Amino acid sequence: MPWDRDLVVALSGGIGGAKLALGLSRIVEPGNLMVVTNTGDDFEHLGLAISPDIDTMLYTLAGIDNQETGWGRADETWNFLAALTQLGGEDWFRLGDKDLAIHVERTRRLAAGETLSQITADFCQRLGIASHVVPMSDDPVRTQLGTGEGWLSFQDYFVRQRCLPVVTEIDFAGVAEAEPNPLLLDALAHERLRAVVICPSNPLISIGPILAVPGVWDALVAATAPIVAVAPIIGGQSVKGPTAKMMRELGIEVSAAEIGRRYGELLAAYVVDHEDLAECADLDLRIVPAQALMTTADDRVALAEAVLDAADESWSRAL
Amino acid sequence: MPWDRDLVVALSGGIGGAKLALGLSRIVEPGNLMVVTNTGDDFEHLGLAISPDIDTMLYTLAGIDNQETGWGRADETWNFLAALTQLGGEDWFRLGDKDLAIHVERTRRLAAGETLSQITADFCQRLGIASHVVPMSDDPVRTQLGTGEGWLSFQDYFVRQRCLPVVTEIDFAGVAEAEPNPLLLDALAHERLRAVVICPSNPLISIGPILAVPGVWDALVAATAPIVAVAPIIGGQSVKGPTAKMMRELGIEVSAAEIGRRYGELLAAYVVDHEDLAECADLDLRIVPAQALMTTADDRVALAEAVLDAADESWSRAL
Repeated sequence: MPWDRDLVVALSGGIGGAKLALGLSRIVEPGNLMVVTNTGDDFEHLGLAISPDIDTMLYTLAGIDNQETGWGRADETWNFLAALTQLGGEDWFRLGDKDLAIHVERTRRLAAGETLSQITADFCQRLGIASHVVPMSDDPVRTQLGTGEGWLSFQDYFVRQRCLPVVTEIDFAGVAEAEPNPLLLDALAHERLRAVVICPSNPLISIGPILAVPGVWDALVAATAPIVAVAPIIGGQSVKGPTAKMMRELGIEVSAAEIGRRYGELLAAYVVDHEDLAECADLDLRIVPAQALMTTADDRVALAEAVLDAADESWSRAL
Repeated sequence: MPWDRDLVVALSGGIGGAKLALGLSRIVEPGNLMVVTNTGDDFEHLGLAISPDIDTMLYTLAGIDNQETGWGRADETWNFLAALTQLGGEDWFRLGDKDLAIHVERTRRLAAGETLSQITADFCQRLGIASHVVPMSDDPVRTQLGTGEGWLSFQDYFVRQRCLPVVTEIDFAGVAEAEPNPLLLDALAHERLRAVVICPSNPLISIGPILAVPGVWDALVAATAPIVAVAPIIGGQSVKGPTAKMMRELGIEVSAAEIGRRYGELLAAYVVDHEDLAECADLDLRIVPAQALMTTADDRVALAEAVLDAADESWSRAL
């Protein structure tokens, strides 16, 4: 790869993507990684502006994420929630005492006129995160799921209804009017861009909203740097979350290969687990096998290295 | 006293008043005590609607108050605040994890259209409080203190500036347009009203705002039941808070006698500490000596008994 190309952009949802982003942050120079995060799961709860994927990303990159739950902060306490329950408040969305601070402070700053990007950048700095966590847009996009029980907001489906309703439709409300984050567009057009990584997040509701923001798909196609995706399906299963269930209900084949087909024209390479190598063999894509399951910190770094190697290999081929 | 008169109304600010209210709640039949609480200290902080005196009253009557600090909840934790500090939030007003719930839930309900009275009544029920805690008004009244550093909101003066600025003026912003709580007016006109108690709270900024709500003074004067005040000054000192300092700065004599003169025409009796009996001797008021310092739970009940005895004695004299 050309050595002056040192910037990496990653597109990500919450937990799975955050693990890879953490791996990337360990091998990319401090400040050279931009993680563009889905905001389709954002919602208002108890009057607070909650951005679940941004928070998971911030907590993970800051090393203060709760590794048992996969959401929220480590060493969390729940005294607020217990008191709220006593007062008859809505307690289905579990807000820990420490976690609450980010929602309260974000809400205050949004009301004072700061953008979600500005707020997130400041939180990065305060949490000691060298990478840039960037919302896909500063305009509200809200993922809605059409189910047998009507349209549900994502958090209602995901948390309150524990992913039980059958999903028949997905809508990203507001996306048609959303401006893509100019930081993302600038990065995609940047002469120092080394790689774009599509993290192993839910392609429908984590990566999908980012790609649906007007202008993002075209900017990705126009980017000179290679785009490498990591399959979020391993052996026909999603590692965490409702990806597989949702794909099945929508009549989409639950396989790494199918997701490869969907990202199709964007990709210079597609990183899949060794287990899924065979089924991806006849895709019209360069397939890179790797261990896609990230259990340890070393797994994350190893996968990040495989992804960047795949990107760099594309530069070599192109030169 | 006539035996069918069993309702007691108490006017109160925060901590000192809440102690007496707790004593009253122990000797009045459950449900027959109404505590009308100052809302002049209410303010917005971090986007949350905070009602310090109501909360102190609720926590005290529910037995979950923090007896060491005099504000907030017992067995409190501070994880939210520490996380907020880390994110650069405003942390001068110390919000505990448990305490936070009442502000978040109140804010949510106010935004949903409930009145402060409705919300407070529901909180009473949920916290197992048989007495009725009633805000002086559902309209916003905000105590402002004129100081050498300009006008300060009460919490700014009290918490952020630790009562250091010299107070030269007091204004209850919004009070001219505030409707008195109809529950208070109904109670004051009620045929079963036994006594009105003015708790030992700051006469200027705790009881003052209640008396300044249009219609309240007249309704007190018109009430047939005796009004009994308890002196918040003992031996020339305020037990807690800035009462004495503030009176001094405003050129008001710091004495139980002076406060008696100010409540003047309202009072059927004035309960003062034994220590202040002599200086109150020449007031044109019936003076009732008692132990006004409430250190133990028994002290609170004993003072409450002395107050109601003083009220009942007024009935006997009137009959």
